[in-house]
Amino acid sequence: MKQYALGIDYGTNSCRSLLIDLENGAEMGSSVFNYPSGEMGVLLDAKDPHVARQNPQDYLDGMVAITRGALEQAATKIPGFDPAQVIGIGIDTTGSTPIPVNQDGTPLGLLPEFKGNLNAMVWLWKDHTGYAEAAEITELARQIRPNIIAKCGGIYSSEWFWSKILRLRRIDPEVFAAAYSFVEHCDWLPAVLAGDTTPTTLKRSVCAAGHKAMFSAEWGGLPDKEFLSQLDPTLADLRDRLYGEAHTSDVKAGSLCAEWAAKLGLKEGTAISVGAFDAHMGAVGAGIKEGTLVKILGTSTCDLMIAPANKPLADIPGVCGIVNGSVLPGYFGIEAGQSAVGDLFLWLVNHLVPESYGSTVGEKFVAMEKAMSAQKPGASGLLALDWNNGNRTVLVDVRLTGLLLGQTLHTEAHEIYRAYIEATAFGALTIIKRVEDYGVKVEEIINTGGLSIKNATLMQCYADIIGKPMKVSQSEQTCALGAAIFGAAAADVADVGTLQAKVTATREKVYEPIPENQAVYAELYALYHTLHDAFGTAQWSGNLGHVMKKLLEIRSRQS
Amino acid sequence: MKQYALGIDYGTNSCRSLLIDLENGAEMGSSVFNYPSGEMGVLLDAKDPHVARQNPQDYLDGMVAITRGALEQAATKIPGFDPAQVIGIGIDTTGSTPIPVNQDGTPLGLLPEFKGNLNAMVWLWKDHTGYAEAAEITELARQIRPNIIAKCGGIYSSEWFWSKILRLRRIDPEVFAAAYSFVEHCDWLPAVLAGDTTPTTLKRSVCAAGHKAMFSAEWGGLPDKEFLSQLDPTLADLRDRLYGEAHTSDVKAGSLCAEWAAKLGLKEGTAISVGAFDAHMGAVGAGIKEGTLVKILGTSTCDLMIAPANKPLADIPGVCGIVNGSVLPGYFGIEAGQSAVGDLFLWLVNHLVPESYGSTVGEKFVAMEKAMSAQKPGASGLLALDWNNGNRTVLVDVRLTGLLLGQTLHTEAHEIYRAYIEATAFGALTIIKRVEDYGVKVEEIINTGGLSIKNATLMQCYADIIGKPMKVSQSEQTCALGAAIFGAAAADVADVGTLQAKVTATREKVYEPIPENQAVYAELYALYHTLHDAFGTAQWSGNLGHVMKKLLEIRSRQS
Repeated sequence: MKQYALGIDYGTNSCRSLLIDLENGAEMGSSVFNYPSGEMGVLLDAKDPHVARQNPQDYLDGMVAITRGALEQAATKIPGFDPAQVIGIGIDTTGSTPIPVNQDGTPLGLLPEFKGNLNAMVWLWKDHTGYAEAAEITELARQIRPNIIAKCGGIYSSEWFWSKILRLRRIDPEVFAAAYSFVEHCDWLPAVLAGDTTPTTLKRSVCAAGHKAMFSAEWGGLPDKEFLSQLDPTLADLRDRLYGEAHTSDVKAGSLCAEWAAKLGLKEGTAISVGAFDAHMGAVGAGIKEGTLVKILGTSTCDLMIAPANKPLADIPGVCGIVNGSVLPGYFGIEAGQSAVGDLFLWLVNHLVPESYGSTVGEKFVAMEKAMSAQKPGASGLLALDWNNGNRTVLVDVRLTGLLLGQTLHTEAHEIYRAYIEATAFGALTIIKRVEDYGVKVEEIINTGGLSIKNATLMQCYADIIGKPMKVSQSEQTCALGAAIFGAAAADVADVGTLQAKVTATREKVYEPIPENQAVYAELYALYHTLHDAFGTAQWSGNLGHVMKKLLEIRSRQS
Repeated sequence: MKQYALGIDYGTNSCRSLLIDLENGAEMGSSVFNYPSGEMGVLLDAKDPHVARQNPQDYLDGMVAITRGALEQAATKIPGFDPAQVIGIGIDTTGSTPIPVNQDGTPLGLLPEFKGNLNAMVWLWKDHTGYAEAAEITELARQIRPNIIAKCGGIYSSEWFWSKILRLRRIDPEVFAAAYSFVEHCDWLPAVLAGDTTPTTLKRSVCAAGHKAMFSAEWGGLPDKEFLSQLDPTLADLRDRLYGEAHTSDVKAGSLCAEWAAKLGLKEGTAISVGAFDAHMGAVGAGIKEGTLVKILGTSTCDLMIAPANKPLADIPGVCGIVNGSVLPGYFGIEAGQSAVGDLFLWLVNHLVPESYGSTVGEKFVAMEKAMSAQKPGASGLLALDWNNGNRTVLVDVRLTGLLLGQTLHTEAHEIYRAYIEATAFGALTIIKRVEDYGVKVEEIINTGGLSIKNATLMQCYADIIGKPMKVSQSEQTCALGAAIFGAAAADVADVGTLQAKVTATREKVYEPIPENQAVYAELYALYHTLHDAFGTAQWSGNLGHVMKKLLEIRSRQS
């Protein structure tokens, strides 16, 4: 009897399922559910652009819809298909996306008494309301606990667990008091399926804990009570109601309970793996191994690598997370990323590309790619910094903005588009140089995500600038594929590496660097690097970083 | 009997006439002639974008057409009008626009043997083919004649007289050999009307001579033979066939000859004043006096001031010309300018503004002005350098390019438009600060040119950033008006100041600085100034100027 595994991928606006054949990775069923709440699934606050929350009910409704959708498809594709052949379920989500829950692990947002209170809902990864709290945590950690901040690049982000919780404590003490504990989205769903969401016992993901909550075995789990109490005494108390252990995703979180087995149409007792974040599972679905960099190219990018956990690995400045087991068991997961890639191109085409290139976004992109293909690298004289949404790696600074240089009276939109593609590639190269400087060798690059499949110009540009062949993952749903792999691993079908070898692959088309382009781009990269350091680092001799900071300060006063 | 004067203004693409009533400046007749040759009057070379020449025949044909056009209009407006009431003619032109001529002063381009040879035609101001020669002249002057280069800002331009002549000598020795002399466009036309174009005796303009040919009474006229012979021995010989004297425009260049009186329909013997450049006569037509800065706002801008010639005036670094008598007799004319203003906005709207703002250039500008009016200064977080066409004053560097900083994923086209308006204002303020630093006080600013009349947003922005009231010249044709004033002065009707008081005026609407905007713009200007120095000056601590230079070098290799 063939065995199948189900991967569930919770994104920002929708969730999707993928049912795979564990012999060869063949995709036998898939389904998508768009969250009905808020604006494309995100609950916004007209008074504060930093607010981004979600309704936990969307997750539950989505789970049922996409599981059943995948099973229905599989039934049409596989003669005699029996849902009992689905032996494991893996789940990935966005993060850090913490949910305030009561003593049973029920999200406060599902309780009638908190109806309509955004603070009781899920705090989505891109909620930035806790930016002041993030700065406070960074400052305190630098002063009294430099070791715990070092592993997350030296700067604690407003997107992360403690910033959000401290923010909630400050702005809504009532909801905070009602929250017995906080559970990451990726930890809550597996517990729901297993039928027990008790916060203090449900199995927590080391990926979420390590990358976002400053959890490490090195210092006994979460940050110590003295540190937390200096932020707020209530956080020290909360620590006892969180967790002391965290797990890799090959570990079984539980078995499918009867209630959810019936809802989903799956067999009771099916293995459910510990959850993790989408990018980390995506890296596994793309075939990550030692020496491989997986680049997940979307609106932003996430870069993932691994390094053996049994060898020492230095802290890498500006690399936002090095966590034992966050990608694969037995390896440090190394996470970096760029804050805007696809988003940068979409901004350009939506705001600054005239209709002479076409009447739709798609037409404009096609026409611009065509127009730029006639030009050699450097022929436009343009150079950009890819910081329209700040810089995540290696500067870890959201208060940076974009820069475009070299315009003349003849500069055209497609030349600017190309300059932005190049800028994101220069940013990608900066990340690679940084990890290699700290001993993590990049021997292979596998790209995944929409841009890697749709944008050949971009992929060639990346090959030329990074100077390595660009491979592209076979699956278009590497996150869900990675989740399915962990589902199977939790069911003890095989270890993750063996499963990866069977079910992941790259495409035949590989983008090879073109030597004459490489030579020119090496010159351009030197200039990018100069601007990067001049505007991005305080150490640079004639530091210009204050120009961007001051403009942001004036902007916030004047708008 | 009323008296009238005729002003003739030769621009880049057309020439225009203006007939004024000398009692009150009332505009009684006007006419425009578009040069029929080349592309909008400019002869181009597909192989070299730096080439910009003109056909002298266009000037002659235009002269007849626009004079007759103005007279015809005047006849319909003035009962009993007699062309003999036109007592003087003044002429302004672009420059430096030298014409290679034979011993009679006939342009070589009009001779059949040079038909079709672009090098024998008029070398228009914006011909940049002599950029290497300009650098050579600058270098030699710095080494052996620092005093003669100091008065033109320390850098000799490719747009100027000697660069063009040396270039011609290098690339077309045959045409150079046939050229007995070279005459500026503004000097040739008055001589034509006076019936004697003998190059060695026709009256040369001190405006053209001083600003473009390094002519000064201080060192005995044009640069000395030793200097010229080091550039090329033939230039030293040429010096004898040029001129030893140059004149202010209140001087009579001659009297209208019978042949041209018949062609134009004017009275033989009518006074013709010495010519000058358009901007300089425009400043007079706008009402320039001591303490007044006249800003001529067009595709680029020209800033003019005067200072008493009987008091010492220091060289002003980066100010491209200080010439005794070039604007008004008895005063130093001080000329500065910005390389792209209207051109910068046109580039933006033509290349980077989507149709959501409107379907025509005009609609887009209107919609952008409306959209930006809701935003306070600094609210976009953007800052630009206005260097898309290089920087004329105070950096005197054509090898500079544009810069836009502060973009986010929400930045819109109208915000960029505003940032460019502000950047040109910051550039204007930089010029004002420089001249004031050297003792020339700016007590009043009068704007003229299309943008000053059409763009209220821009004028208010200039008032807020420069911190002074912005006045606007009454006449829309200040260049031709200034020429008419000189025509009358050459006829001894009155002195220039008296004529100016009668016929020039500013509009009722004055743009006053808004204090709260001024405060924010002062902060933004400090940031502009930092970028200006970082990218524009070699002295700056962490000099980034090489970034722009290197990009241009790569561009020229790759395109």
